[in-house]
Amino acid sequence: MLFFENDYSEGAHEQVLQHLVNTTREKLLAYGADRYSEAAREKIRLACQAPNAEIFFLAGGTQSNQVVIDALLAPQDGAIAAKTGHIALHEAGAIEATGHKVLELPQENGKLQAEVVRTYLQDFYNDTSHEHMVAPGLVYISHPTEYGTLYTESELAALRKVCDDYELKLYLDGARLGYALACPESDITLPILAKYCDAFYIGGTKVGALCGEAVVFPQNAPKHFNTQVKRHGAMLAKSRVVGVQFDALFTDDLYYKLGRYAIQKARQLRAALQERNYRFFIDSPSNQIFVIMDNERLKELSKHVQYSFWEKYDEKHTVIRFATSWATEQEDLDSLIALL
Amino acid sequence: MLFFENDYSEGAHEQVLQHLVNTTREKLLAYGADRYSEAAREKIRLACQAPNAEIFFLAGGTQSNQVVIDALLAPQDGAIAAKTGHIALHEAGAIEATGHKVLELPQENGKLQAEVVRTYLQDFYNDTSHEHMVAPGLVYISHPTEYGTLYTESELAALRKVCDDYELKLYLDGARLGYALACPESDITLPILAKYCDAFYIGGTKVGALCGEAVVFPQNAPKHFNTQVKRHGAMLAKSRVVGVQFDALFTDDLYYKLGRYAIQKARQLRAALQERNYRFFIDSPSNQIFVIMDNERLKELSKHVQYSFWEKYDEKHTVIRFATSWATEQEDLDSLIALL
Amino acid sequence: MLFFENDYSEGAHEQVLQHLVNTTREKLLAYGADRYSEAAREKIRLACQAPNAEIFFLAGGTQSNQVVIDALLAPQDGAIAAKTGHIALHEAGAIEATGHKVLELPQENGKLQAEVVRTYLQDFYNDTSHEHMVAPGLVYISHPTEYGTLYTESELAALRKVCDDYELKLYLDGARLGYALACPESDITLPILAKYCDAFYIGGTKVGALCGEAVVFPQNAPKHFNTQVKRHGAMLAKSRVVGVQFDALFTDDLYYKLGRYAIQKARQLRAALQERNYRFFIDSPSNQIFVIMDNERLKELSKHVQYSFWEKYDEKHTVIRFATSWATEQEDLDSLIALL
Amino acid sequence: MLFFENDYSEGAHEQVLQHLVNTTREKLLAYGADRYSEAAREKIRLACQAPNAEIFFLAGGTQSNQVVIDALLAPQDGAIAAKTGHIALHEAGAIEATGHKVLELPQENGKLQAEVVRTYLQDFYNDTSHEHMVAPGLVYISHPTEYGTLYTESELAALRKVCDDYELKLYLDGARLGYALACPESDITLPILAKYCDAFYIGGTKVGALCGEAVVFPQNAPKHFNTQVKRHGAMLAKSRVVGVQFDALFTDDLYYKLGRYAIQKARQLRAALQERNYRFFIDSPSNQIFVIMDNERLKELSKHVQYSFWEKYDEKHTVIRFATSWATEQEDLDSLIALL
Repeated sequence: MLFFENDYSEGAHEQVLQHLVNTTREKLLAYGADRYSEAAREKIRLACQAPNAEIFFLAGGTQSNQVVIDALLAPQDGAIAAKTGHIALHEAGAIEATGHKVLELPQENGKLQAEVVRTYLQDFYNDTSHEHMVAPGLVYISHPTEYGTLYTESELAALRKVCDDYELKLYLDGARLGYALACPESDITLPILAKYCDAFYIGGTKVGALCGEAVVFPQNAPKHFNTQVKRHGAMLAKSRVVGVQFDALFTDDLYYKLGRYAIQKARQLRAALQERNYRFFIDSPSNQIFVIMDNERLKELSKHVQYSFWEKYDEKHTVIRFATSWATEQEDLDSLIALL
Repeated sequence: MLFFENDYSEGAHEQVLQHLVNTTREKLLAYGADRYSEAAREKIRLACQAPNAEIFFLAGGTQSNQVVIDALLAPQDGAIAAKTGHIALHEAGAIEATGHKVLELPQENGKLQAEVVRTYLQDFYNDTSHEHMVAPGLVYISHPTEYGTLYTESELAALRKVCDDYELKLYLDGARLGYALACPESDITLPILAKYCDAFYIGGTKVGALCGEAVVFPQNAPKHFNTQVKRHGAMLAKSRVVGVQFDALFTDDLYYKLGRYAIQKARQLRAALQERNYRFFIDSPSNQIFVIMDNERLKELSKHVQYSFWEKYDEKHTVIRFATSWATEQEDLDSLIALL
Repeated sequence: MLFFENDYSEGAHEQVLQHLVNTTREKLLAYGADRYSEAAREKIRLACQAPNAEIFFLAGGTQSNQVVIDALLAPQDGAIAAKTGHIALHEAGAIEATGHKVLELPQENGKLQAEVVRTYLQDFYNDTSHEHMVAPGLVYISHPTEYGTLYTESELAALRKVCDDYELKLYLDGARLGYALACPESDITLPILAKYCDAFYIGGTKVGALCGEAVVFPQNAPKHFNTQVKRHGAMLAKSRVVGVQFDALFTDDLYYKLGRYAIQKARQLRAALQERNYRFFIDSPSNQIFVIMDNERLKELSKHVQYSFWEKYDEKHTVIRFATSWATEQEDLDSLIALL
Repeated sequence: MLFFENDYSEGAHEQVLQHLVNTTREKLLAYGADRYSEAAREKIRLACQAPNAEIFFLAGGTQSNQVVIDALLAPQDGAIAAKTGHIALHEAGAIEATGHKVLELPQENGKLQAEVVRTYLQDFYNDTSHEHMVAPGLVYISHPTEYGTLYTESELAALRKVCDDYELKLYLDGARLGYALACPESDITLPILAKYCDAFYIGGTKVGALCGEAVVFPQNAPKHFNTQVKRHGAMLAKSRVVGVQFDALFTDDLYYKLGRYAIQKARQLRAALQERNYRFFIDSPSNQIFVIMDNERLKELSKHVQYSFWEKYDEKHTVIRFATSWATEQEDLDSLIALL
């Protein structure tokens, strides 16, 4: 069986694992104060050109979203997100569990457009009863989006401008950030994220780590953030498990290399699909490819390949997703292409 | 510097790491459905003699406490705990963050006595205004306790009886369970825990794993427990990171071996302290040793050894804690003993 | 200035006030156990033909929604509501404050259609990742809706059927229920509500009371509901303040009389508007009338009448709302009609 | 049956009711913006000598505590209270329902002593693991306390000093404030409360109103407080119901007169008890009297008088509470005294 269902079906990259192995008997400080976490932070600050950034290592993506959004918002405020955003749909109400409403806005190719947000905010504050409504306190976006699409710097700048105009925070979910950074279609880099966002996280789980995300506050973290992390059950005693992994990921550009590798594989697959005249559901330049498949053909393919069902397209067609990752084997890719 | 400050300052045991290394390129199902997690569950069921137990792998202890207690309680109910219990004191309000009051009762040597709980419950239901108070819905204990002390089976049975009489759940925090199971002072085994508790967790983080705890519901888990885990941000995409580790820990009795090793080291240290007429703050048979130290002597010792400050004893004395673990080196222990 | 802005701008009806005055020195039990609350409950049970109904008196509508929905839902579940529903838009996130997501569905004339809910539920359970999503646990509707429209019995029955098929609760917000019951356009009566709903509230605040709503559980209330009320800060020490008022409202059909009076006034106003060829934004048979006004004309009207701004219709027109109530004076209505 | 069980068993004082009657057909703004609420605010500002005070009218005491404490605290902080404090014991976990821990400290005669709080705070910040604990963010006291005892200005000033030293808020629950202000034993006045507290509420429910409390922020209210009130379900559409009552209570010193009346009755009762050599459980100068009664005598008394059971004193004695109020009739008091 060929596996193209998602980008979190393998463990960690060998260099990451090796670093865990090498350091395992070292006696290190707990709760994120160990020297590998410190080293990883310093490397990330450098990569972000954000010398004052405060960086925290958490175990997973939903957790990072929950803890950061709760820390950035006033208790009565809500988080704006695309209707298709991960926090809106696929986190089992983790944001609402902390008392905040997710304010869902329409998206375009999975992206939240600055003008859509601005119009929403204008309407909100023009509504004389807005004191009885949930005030937006933050804009949540992800890069790449749920549809594998990418923001450009100018789109990000426009979102920042709206946030500034209405005193909102801007937070970016980078679960697959490594794959976005490797795409020439987007001019967004880590320093650009650090320039525009109040917070973002660099995803490890889907980009070479066993687990873990690096939450970055480019300017400064919310007050008592560690206590808030702990309060949400998200503080790892052996926080080193994530710190050591990020230390490896940000050594010798490994994080970028893994990203580029996955994108290269995705390009090969996309080219093969195009050659064979498959229709794409959406033009997604990163490591997720959404294809409209004939149901008969799909039935056949299912015998050999695991993919993600996305949605029914029409009576005769289905949208499916192929994902490549840092761990996609060329051999498997060749086999998949041969089957198409 | 000798390190006896805690039992979570190293990474993972080599066999645990090796299993992570060996399986890293295997394509496995996400969210806990992978075959190593399944294997680990089966081994734990066997060890617990609980063939129907439902088992979940979470990243950390506070998180496990938060998710399980919230799932076991009705929204308006509270959790009874010793005043010195971890959820009462050292989890930054993680239980209250889910809306539940921790009902703090007096402890004896860190333990909650069944009779204390019973009297509390009698008084509660005799109070005609109890409808305006937080009803107790669960008893939380830990084994070993915060003071390294241990419950006996009869104490556990007595707590179970009170819980049955008042329709409460019984939940046991086993952050250091491996060290308790290795102590002959307690007759509590995994099957006994499975018999008496509605839920408990087998701690990995402090007993040989990089991270992770195995939450065990001997009978059946609360409805939709996975959704509740996700809602608390506690669902790991690569849940294998914990599953694989527990598969290693429950292979060839590794979990027990690590426990016994630490207890052996603790016994050596305790014997050395006794020989030298040190006074113990509490009689704790497990891997934590609480000693009343002369401040002058302590000052000297601080130059060579890291320990935990526990509390001021009097003007001239301080209570400190030494902890051994699966990773304590005999050489370090000898050096420490030589310094005493 | 003529006042047609809303239906909560006066105090209480004289008969309601008189009952408060007459009983004020009587020493009564606190927290809802007084004999007037009991009498009101009995009258409401009779009116609902629900002899076993459990009834609670709370101070306001948002509070009732918050407490009841939180009590009916499992912690991880969400409440389905029309996108325009009060809990979705105008309660400042009171439902999310208790940890529950409001699952917003499209509406038709302010109403939630059973088929829309059914399709949503089918799609939800067909989605293989629904375990990672907020499961719907309850359907929230209001009668009349935010747009003054009304459900029919068959629509209500269809919603009940969907709820039964998917094990959801059905809850109806009756903030303006008195005005709905007085409309011949709907065949819904209190016994019909009691037959189909798991819970609903009979609105007092907008129908003749100073404050207060009667929450009705036709079969039985959630366990320990009083404690849940208290926990949400919603328990009135002198619960009599609401109980006595409902006792008056359900004596000699006062509640119905007040409803019919407001509807009569609304009919006069609607007829006058029709005669003068005003366009209606929506066909709302109850006490709220939504008119599309020419901006110039509106400017003039504003000098003499207070109304609700609803929304911009186009560059030259605005949607406004006139509301009548139990307290609308015929003289004021005549003056308003003269101005149209 | 004579009724001395509590101070909330009657409705409202006649002048309060009359004001409700007189204003009932007036068309007033909703949500607290009406002119009677404004007038009441102005009178309270004058009484407090706090010209910039922001004042809000809520329906009840638990609700006021919940909304205000949640608004004053950072999400991760806790509220210090006496172990016997109302929020610690008798509000069904309303504070925990908003995610905050109640940090319970020992009390003396129901009062929280500044030195106890200071020692607690010193120990907290000396504990190197305090980042993993709930940080105290607010001190909650009530005046009178649950035991009817009173703070002095110097005690209040000392608490303020501790709060300042540790950047905590000071909040005072004045459910029975009218009865405290009428006691010469305490030198605390409204201006003194306004001077020392960040927030307090003036209780109406127990001092002459049907329902309602006036929440006072002497300097300024938390940002978007109205939205927070709404979010907790505590916003009354017809907020006038409380505003009008406070307008009456603060006209012609009615609030003080009612307080003095109840205290006068309490003094008569206390004198009678002393004369007859009854033992007092605590020396409480306000409207609650705690007496140690012989069980036999109590049995006899129970046939004629309703009182509050407080606690068992010993095998042969019971502590009971008599409460007087603004509504205590002299005739009833004489009858009670005759029975003693």
